[in-house]
Amino acid sequence: MPAAVPLKSQGRSAAHRSFERLCGLVAGDLEEVNRTIVDRLQSPVELIPQLAGRLVASGGKRLRPILTLATARMCGYEGARHVRLAACVELIHTATLLHDDVVDDSALRRGAATANAVWGNKPSVLVGDFLFSRSFQLMVEDGSLEVLRILSDASAAIARGEVDQLLISNDVSTGAGAYMDVIRAKTATLFAAASEIGAVVSGRPAAEQTALRTYGMGLGTAFQLVDDVLDYSARQADLGKTVGDDFRDGKITLPIVLAIERGDDEERAFWRRALESEDRRDGDLEHAMTLLARRDALGAAMAETHRHGDEARRAMEAFPAGAYRDALLDLVDFCVEREF
Amino acid sequence: MPAAVPLKSQGRSAAHRSFERLCGLVAGDLEEVNRTIVDRLQSPVELIPQLAGRLVASGGKRLRPILTLATARMCGYEGARHVRLAACVELIHTATLLHDDVVDDSALRRGAATANAVWGNKPSVLVGDFLFSRSFQLMVEDGSLEVLRILSDASAAIARGEVDQLLISNDVSTGAGAYMDVIRAKTATLFAAASEIGAVVSGRPAAEQTALRTYGMGLGTAFQLVDDVLDYSARQADLGKTVGDDFRDGKITLPIVLAIERGDDEERAFWRRALESEDRRDGDLEHAMTLLARRDALGAAMAETHRHGDEARRAMEAFPAGAYRDALLDLVDFCVEREF
Repeated sequence: MPAAVPLKSQGRSAAHRSFERLCGLVAGDLEEVNRTIVDRLQSPVELIPQLAGRLVASGGKRLRPILTLATARMCGYEGARHVRLAACVELIHTATLLHDDVVDDSALRRGAATANAVWGNKPSVLVGDFLFSRSFQLMVEDGSLEVLRILSDASAAIARGEVDQLLISNDVSTGAGAYMDVIRAKTATLFAAASEIGAVVSGRPAAEQTALRTYGMGLGTAFQLVDDVLDYSARQADLGKTVGDDFRDGKITLPIVLAIERGDDEERAFWRRALESEDRRDGDLEHAMTLLARRDALGAAMAETHRHGDEARRAMEAFPAGAYRDALLDLVDFCVEREF
Repeated sequence: MPAAVPLKSQGRSAAHRSFERLCGLVAGDLEEVNRTIVDRLQSPVELIPQLAGRLVASGGKRLRPILTLATARMCGYEGARHVRLAACVELIHTATLLHDDVVDDSALRRGAATANAVWGNKPSVLVGDFLFSRSFQLMVEDGSLEVLRILSDASAAIARGEVDQLLISNDVSTGAGAYMDVIRAKTATLFAAASEIGAVVSGRPAAEQTALRTYGMGLGTAFQLVDDVLDYSARQADLGKTVGDDFRDGKITLPIVLAIERGDDEERAFWRRALESEDRRDGDLEHAMTLLARRDALGAAMAETHRHGDEARRAMEAFPAGAYRDALLDLVDFCVEREF
């Protein structure tokens, strides 16, 4: 049941309501996750809880820990380990956010007050390392080598994907396949790991573990693609949000890859100048949006998004109906249709 | 048997010869460690082996993996796990080096071509994350939760120590206790972990595990203190090496802490101006070296170094004499008396 028209506003509120339902289901567990994180970030070195707390309390959607909590509950888990493991997932995510905000000397961008803008690069890096290590300490306390395997694999994939993304930035010859590889590694893998852990902690059979991994992979991929599309969405502009950050950063995302593939020589010359040569001029963003519309690149990217959303939904067929499964299915709609 | 006169040149060659003896004992194992590392850094993302290989091949002394190899052999270990675990230790060390070189926007210092100077901050951060994750993946393959505990604890301590060091930099009120806490966390902990693992992999009793931990802690602390002293050593200048890098960075190290504690008001005003206010002038380094000599700060720091070296040596009494134990004892002399 993917929405026929992407990004329309009735869709938003319905999807938003179902996300709130999911949040309601795991609210108690999520509070425990928050407590665990705050607890584990106590340190005589004040900068650590300060810097980390800023991110943890920043009002993110907490999708990744919610995935661990909800999949564990769906699998009938009744213990308390899933809380600690959801905290591990969130700590890794927070560490990658901190590290992602570290900028190259050569390319200080964006005006937003990221942690590194406030404290400098080095504290962001080191506190990120601390969160990352804390996450592994927590996993060791939990004692499951399987979870350690899943999350160390995910961490390596994220780092690999981020390096890869750096290398394709400004490269207009990037193909859709290469781009999809990057977002699978840097974004979808942690969604997959977070979901898979729900089956592992519940001692469910391998088939269910795989199903949850597939679900998370589809969901995470769709999530990232929507992110990419939203950056060029007129609806975003209506909502008073910034449009074109990715463009201003010279970022190659799926809509751009598709517009370049479908464009003529003149269009390709434009993309090359604006993204590869970093020679961006007044009116370029508007022209980029015109070309994206002309080649239906946002529509095609949304079609790809729906394909991954459908994959996530299909993976859920391995589980019997119930409140958690329904909520996890609704979460796919939410991720696909969200406008923020 | 600490050398009576620190940093004298006969001492150097004797200590250097014994270090070469130790390297000879573990040469075969160390080659396997190198192979394991190169193997595990294969990646379709070329920047990763490039950047990491640059560090791994940079001709460091490889003290930390050598500790794991030699302690395991001393404990009678005859398997192959110690090679993989020594690689884990080195990967963590290399990751921290990469992250340590990331600079604050506000304070780009030193002229050396660190990885981040060549590639920018962001690749250094991300490749560091990759090495770190790879290390945990390798530990998971090894399958010892005890090793995972030891190295995740060490990683958290390193990150905590590095943040702490950032906070005391330029703070002339830093006491010796606070400073020793920092170097224990950021440097000695990994030496301790690397050594402890030798007993763990050999299945030796807790007392031996603790003894090796104590050995590594003493050794690592002495190693860092010598580093601090060498930065102000006249002998370094004789050898054509840079002197005063720490001073130029406004770094607070034990010699400085002691000179400030022992100095009069006028001296303290100098240190405050030069290190806290970052108002450094021509001739300041020379004046700093005069004050360090007047207050015997380098001698006192070396006395502290010997105290930690002696602790390391005492810990070795838990083990019977033999080639590996002798070499590990000699390693203490090497670390205390080294001039590079």
